[in-house]
Amino acid sequence: MTDQEYLALAADQARQGAGQTWTNPLVGAVLVKDGRILARGYHHRFGQDHAEVNTLKQLNDVRQARGATMYVTLEPCSHYGKTPPCARKLVAVGIRRVVIGQRDPNPLVSGKGIAILRAAGIDVTVLATTTDLNPAYNFFYHHHRPLVTLKMAISADGKLNAATGTRTRLTGAEANHDSQRFRATQQAILVGERTLTIDQPALTVRETAVAVPPRRVVVVNSADQIDRHNRLFRTSEPVWLLSRQPSHRSWPANVTVVAGRRWTPAQIVRYLAQQGLQSLLVEGGSHLHAQFVAAGLVDRLITYVAPVVLGGQALPAVQGAASQALPLTLTQVQSLGTDVRLTFRRRV
Amino acid sequence: MTDQEYLALAADQARQGAGQTWTNPLVGAVLVKDGRILARGYHHRFGQDHAEVNTLKQLNDVRQARGATMYVTLEPCSHYGKTPPCARKLVAVGIRRVVIGQRDPNPLVSGKGIAILRAAGIDVTVLATTTDLNPAYNFFYHHHRPLVTLKMAISADGKLNAATGTRTRLTGAEANHDSQRFRATQQAILVGERTLTIDQPALTVRETAVAVPPRRVVVVNSADQIDRHNRLFRTSEPVWLLSRQPSHRSWPANVTVVAGRRWTPAQIVRYLAQQGLQSLLVEGGSHLHAQFVAAGLVDRLITYVAPVVLGGQALPAVQGAASQALPLTLTQVQSLGTDVRLTFRRRV
Repeated sequence: MTDQEYLALAADQARQGAGQTWTNPLVGAVLVKDGRILARGYHHRFGQDHAEVNTLKQLNDVRQARGATMYVTLEPCSHYGKTPPCARKLVAVGIRRVVIGQRDPNPLVSGKGIAILRAAGIDVTVLATTTDLNPAYNFFYHHHRPLVTLKMAISADGKLNAATGTRTRLTGAEANHDSQRFRATQQAILVGERTLTIDQPALTVRETAVAVPPRRVVVVNSADQIDRHNRLFRTSEPVWLLSRQPSHRSWPANVTVVAGRRWTPAQIVRYLAQQGLQSLLVEGGSHLHAQFVAAGLVDRLITYVAPVVLGGQALPAVQGAASQALPLTLTQVQSLGTDVRLTFRRRV
Repeated sequence: MTDQEYLALAADQARQGAGQTWTNPLVGAVLVKDGRILARGYHHRFGQDHAEVNTLKQLNDVRQARGATMYVTLEPCSHYGKTPPCARKLVAVGIRRVVIGQRDPNPLVSGKGIAILRAAGIDVTVLATTTDLNPAYNFFYHHHRPLVTLKMAISADGKLNAATGTRTRLTGAEANHDSQRFRATQQAILVGERTLTIDQPALTVRETAVAVPPRRVVVVNSADQIDRHNRLFRTSEPVWLLSRQPSHRSWPANVTVVAGRRWTPAQIVRYLAQQGLQSLLVEGGSHLHAQFVAAGLVDRLITYVAPVVLGGQALPAVQGAASQALPLTLTQVQSLGTDVRLTFRRRV
């Protein structure tokens, strides 16, 4: 097997952690000696062991690792975080060669893990074959802001709701499951005040037990005008109310009010970046989507297209703020029951 | 091979006539004797020989047909039209068995072709496996009006144009070719007056030499207010101007003005049915589409979705007349270059 093929196996490992690693990247590893796979492992969950350590733990005797090659999808870490640095661990157990699928873009690590390995005389090969595993993580360290995904369920004629001020359920069970699975991969989910009021979304991840739930973020004019019986407040996942007006209410422990800015898309994204969040899912509504489009803050777009025409008076998707045309690339077409999901990314 | 398998071969033949048979159905045939295929044929072109006759013409000696089985996708005709009746021809050449893929819905033929064959002692099997070949033909005889297809090129956020009153080219070459190929299968193409003025569409079939070109139909308030230098009038294919106001102009031979009705979708469809047209493609614009949706006159919808977001001030698809939600079924998803085509049919 080639280095690339072993890395592909390591990437399969990595994906098993999807939705569980929070701001940590998905990482997988495969340990090989004399053409035989000795162990596989991955980073299971935020705050727990890294992939390299989990892989070594699969061995009956860690001395088996002596002289072996470790294939790992991301540069081994070099810093003391929640766990000791993996690069030092690989040196300690006598790994002879390390093949890395991607250099870590995190400046705390980038190049430093590789340097530790090479300084210890380990043969290190760095490829760039596993960069697709962590789009938001990579994006965050390159652009210093979260990767922004706009998501909408629309009719075949591009409408959100049969009429303004109502909620129309367009998509079927499979699309709704998919939408839930996607939420599990995101660190923040944002809606506007009208969507909060009309749709009463819980904004929770309901079908997967995630290690850390996405922050539920709502832009409001005045937090103190929000109905505290709204469905949003019935669950304990963190809520961040980005309020234009200051709040004088007392709030439950899971609710944070951040007041006093206009909360333009740029301000929202900057705030989330300051909190270290790498991904933002903008679920709506139509006007908030239009603001993000107008601000050019759209890195990905997901549309679930439902087989219905809502007609000439229905509420169009992305309505409000004017903008330049935003060129995209269609990256995936997926049938989901009677609906179809189209995934686009910003054209670069 | 089974009867169904031979009929599938006959259907492959039939499809070769696509775009050339005008109001005639696509029909294909296969002649089989002693488990051997002796000949295949199809209806090539409006006004020319039917499939059965073309198949028999493939034989070196028509006496080979004696005792053979004819597989034909549609009931052989019983009436003297542009050609003598095929059912009598099959009797004359001594066919022993006829397997029919679909009973002809045209009341001039329906059951009568079968009756001629059976009266002559031919063993006739009637299946219903090739009904998909001629959706508009079948629809027309069942519903007494043309099958209406709405077609639109839209952005990922469901918009037609960057702004009202302008034309935005959204789709790429492959989608445009596909759109041309689809036009070739239609008997009438309809646009509204605004689309005529702004887009200046030729409404011609440019990439296929069709036997009979689709009628180019435009709904206008007053035919006499239309700019005669519009691109529509530069080619010789028939134009039907459905005008609310009467016309006092003299028009070229290929232009027909039909005046004096309000030209609601129901009136348009009724008029086309009276002219014997089985299919209508409504190309736009947004308001005309909304009127057809509101009238419930949408049998199929084709959207070409382009990878771009036009944003909050762009012109939405299907805008204007209010309507009930119109449930559809997604029947096809097709990638066309950088665009994707979604095809829906009315849910029944």
